Amino acid sequence: MSTNPQDNVLATAQAGAAASADAAKQSSKSKKESKLQFQLKTPKGTKDWADKDMVIREAIFSSLSGLFKRHGGVTIDTPVFELREILAGKYGEDSKLIYNLQDQGGELTSLRYDLTVPFARYVAMNNIQNIKRYHIAKVYRRDQPAMTKGRMREFYQCDFDVAGSYDLMVPDAEILAIVVEGLTGLGITEFKVKINHRKILDGLFQVCGVKDEDIRKISSAVDKLDKTPWEVVKKEMVEEKNQPEEVADRIGEYVKLKGSLSEVLETLKKSEALLANETAKQGIDEMSTLLTYVQAFEIEKFVSFDLSLARGLDYYTGLIYEAVTSASAPPTNASELKKQKKSDDEDASEYVGVGSIAGGGRYDNLVNIFATANGKKNQSIPCVGISFGIERIFSLIKLREAQKKDLTIKPSATQVFVMAFGGGPDWKGYLPERMAIAKQLWSQGIETEYVYKAKANPRKQFEAAEKSGAPVAVILGKEEYLEGKLRVKRLGPEFANDDGELIAIDEVITKVQEKLEEAKGSAGVDEVTRLLKGL
Amino acid sequence: MSTNPQDNVLATAQAGAAASADAAKQSSKSKKESKLQFQLKTPKGTKDWADKDMVIREAIFSSLSGLFKRHGGVTIDTPVFELREILAGKYGEDSKLIYNLQDQGGELTSLRYDLTVPFARYVAMNNIQNIKRYHIAKVYRRDQPAMTKGRMREFYQCDFDVAGSYDLMVPDAEILAIVVEGLTGLGITEFKVKINHRKILDGLFQVCGVKDEDIRKISSAVDKLDKTPWEVVKKEMVEEKNQPEEVADRIGEYVKLKGSLSEVLETLKKSEALLANETAKQGIDEMSTLLTYVQAFEIEKFVSFDLSLARGLDYYTGLIYEAVTSASAPPTNASELKKQKKSDDEDASEYVGVGSIAGGGRYDNLVNIFATANGKKNQSIPCVGISFGIERIFSLIKLREAQKKDLTIKPSATQVFVMAFGGGPDWKGYLPERMAIAKQLWSQGIETEYVYKAKANPRKQFEAAEKSGAPVAVILGKEEYLEGKLRVKRLGPEFANDDGELIAIDEVITKVQEKLEEAKGSAGVDEVTRLLKGL
Repeated sequence: MSTNPQDNVLATAQAGAAASADAAKQSSKSKKESKLQFQLKTPKGTKDWADKDMVIREAIFSSLSGLFKRHGGVTIDTPVFELREILAGKYGEDSKLIYNLQDQGGELTSLRYDLTVPFARYVAMNNIQNIKRYHIAKVYRRDQPAMTKGRMREFYQCDFDVAGSYDLMVPDAEILAIVVEGLTGLGITEFKVKINHRKILDGLFQVCGVKDEDIRKISSAVDKLDKTPWEVVKKEMVEEKNQPEEVADRIGEYVKLKGSLSEVLETLKKSEALLANETAKQGIDEMSTLLTYVQAFEIEKFVSFDLSLARGLDYYTGLIYEAVTSASAPPTNASELKKQKKSDDEDASEYVGVGSIAGGGRYDNLVNIFATANGKKNQSIPCVGISFGIERIFSLIKLREAQKKDLTIKPSATQVFVMAFGGGPDWKGYLPERMAIAKQLWSQGIETEYVYKAKANPRKQFEAAEKSGAPVAVILGKEEYLEGKLRVKRLGPEFANDDGELIAIDEVITKVQEKLEEAKGSAGVDEVTRLLKGL
Repeated sequence: MSTNPQDNVLATAQAGAAASADAAKQSSKSKKESKLQFQLKTPKGTKDWADKDMVIREAIFSSLSGLFKRHGGVTIDTPVFELREILAGKYGEDSKLIYNLQDQGGELTSLRYDLTVPFARYVAMNNIQNIKRYHIAKVYRRDQPAMTKGRMREFYQCDFDVAGSYDLMVPDAEILAIVVEGLTGLGITEFKVKINHRKILDGLFQVCGVKDEDIRKISSAVDKLDKTPWEVVKKEMVEEKNQPEEVADRIGEYVKLKGSLSEVLETLKKSEALLANETAKQGIDEMSTLLTYVQAFEIEKFVSFDLSLARGLDYYTGLIYEAVTSASAPPTNASELKKQKKSDDEDASEYVGVGSIAGGGRYDNLVNIFATANGKKNQSIPCVGISFGIERIFSLIKLREAQKKDLTIKPSATQVFVMAFGGGPDWKGYLPERMAIAKQLWSQGIETEYVYKAKANPRKQFEAAEKSGAPVAVILGKEEYLEGKLRVKRLGPEFANDDGELIAIDEVITKVQEKLEEAKGSAGVDEVTRLLKGL
């Protein structure tokens, strides 16, 4: 189109766009810095999610909801706050972390602390006999935030729970398969799923001479062994939780046990003392059943039987588990880092990696607590579930993003940018005409933008198009349009000198769709998928 | 496979399944009734979303987020609660409806009342010059709930807002196009988008002799005209808001004006008085500009220029709008219904339909309030936005569902059900074998379930398969499997006598995919799409 007056306009405009794109990068950088000077903030332990992070977050959610659907899950939603008595006495020591709503007349309510208790309330309330449900939603804990570690006061949980009476360990095994499938599906390969059994724990405490009333508090002492050396935990048992030293030592022998499910089972089966204890015996038998299913799912290599895993919550009754990645291991210099800690928004655990990235277990009595508390006949609905810690998984994937220099996540989905070029005293800018074209493209489901100006200069329009990341442009040239013609062209550096195709206005949809196909073909797998799969 | 021992097992099992499916329908009905006797409940004005409703809700969300993406929207997320001072003084009289969190030490916070104020806070805090963002999230208002009307204390808003300095009425017009595109996309065709302009309102109040300090309260009186006859509103103006009767009468003349954008503009342009008022004049000119764009988008027939539309919120500065459906019109017997009202969970407006299903307007000063409040130099970021009322739209679509008797929404996505048939003393039930097959299908992304029992009888397995809605079954026959063979068959009444195909175990993936293709082909457009499009 060398005869065409827009020739040089196009060229210069596109050159300009490229240049000022770098400028944009600069300014967005300095913008981040200037942000610090604002007093405007979100509440402690909460954060805003910006556009690109939302693209990543939604990709994680759709990966996990796809996983849950593959396993027959349905989804439900419950309110962000519950009647206070629903949450009361479900979280042991951690109940102090519950957010209460102010009493403004009417009911006393609190923000949900997890998705499990509301789920149990839902099952009991609706008299449900069995359900596989997943729920992806925010929960609230007035904990000491550790942002970089992904520990927030408002954070997402992705839960999958199976309620109903089934054969021993069958849903439990599938949940373990789901953990493995879920994490590998997010490109996380370096992880272990620690497992243990509450019955084995309780049994071994009895065997070691712990009184029944002391079992839960000893259990929570043991739970610290992932972050604390045995000597310290032993000290706590003896001095704070006044157990005889020999009791602590006996416990020490057991809780040091860890290894593959089959190995540790072998060892436990050699312990006369444990087998003699009814509770422990049950736990060991269940673990042997689990082994068969874990092998059927070919996930044994991911599983580590660890007798020091206890899990904090009171309501677990059977198998418990926790997925940890190598990224979750404490850095060797944790203690020094602790000394240097600056902001009181952060605490020591800031420096022990992202912690466990998924956890859960079996809780057979929780639904029944609600049912009986409401005058229903005792009728137990056994449950087992898993919760993925999204904030922690998200920070792992952000780490991955930071390492991939070539990766550019596009916040918008814009495919087409409609522009108009012209000039002269009678030039009005073709804004209503651009709108009419956009309207046509929208009605075909095509993501389309244009500059919100009656008269926009070509360079500004190319800059906006480049910013939007649209691969295709529709150009209304002043003269061309008067002749009933439009220009459809590919965008991007490699098309700087491509003038596109001049077509009749009524061909715009088909031509645009054709160019979009081209663009898709050359693009390959999209950036977000690359990021999630770790490609 | 007449020589095959499973022959009759299959037949009887499938017959049984069909029968007990009806039984299931029965019991689920009686379950709903028994639900009433529980004291377990969600807080007033909140509700649980059950599986099928979630399928519908997510379809609505994806329809709207698709819409927003088509218009170049990016999405962000903000915390459910904000610092209390962020929300303070933004909602006029309605501020009393804000939920506060209890002071448990630390900051004073409140649940968000809408998504607009957090958005403005976000834009100011991050020094953003322009953004088109959408946000689909829950907001909280301690209002009198009216469940059937879709008025809740916890409810979803779907917001799209455009921030940035652009030519007059350009983004505003696109927002109106989005309202029309969004509602028609949800099969809602009987609706009007009422529009008005705050500058015209303020101007005409001045012209009628209202003192500037009285304008907002007179405006909120006028806002009641959609539910209240003029006589009552006039009474309020004269007696409560002590305006001279002639002032009220003059206002009455103007606010009765409604009709197409072009008609009403014609009328207004004839009013010397209004044109003499600077503010009114500006508003009228802007509406003329809007007309051109509304015509470019071909949405004029949906738009109704209604001078009685005022909108409650303080922060609007320009164009305002509200979409109402015929379903939102008050039933003629509203007053009697009002007398009969039973539960105090409900109030009169319970009986005036679902009200407006989308609303919004231009608010040019809100971002600046946050910016300047935080010592930033005065720098205005004009904004215009729309909020879709999901709960209300949802209840319209539920109404539609109730009318479509043939419609069956499937809560789970299950495609394949793996079963095993056998018998005899040595029969173990092939559970690990079923798990292994399921694992293979999962790894191919195929939604697969099986019964969580070591030994399940064929009938129970067919019932479970039917309940899951899976179109395909994989069957491990005791003898067949020993010979390295599986059976893959279609499910559903029309396949009751189809024994499926006997294949080698390693062909299972390809054969299943083939059968699923068949099933998809015969299924046609899915039920949820039918529901949303009103097909």
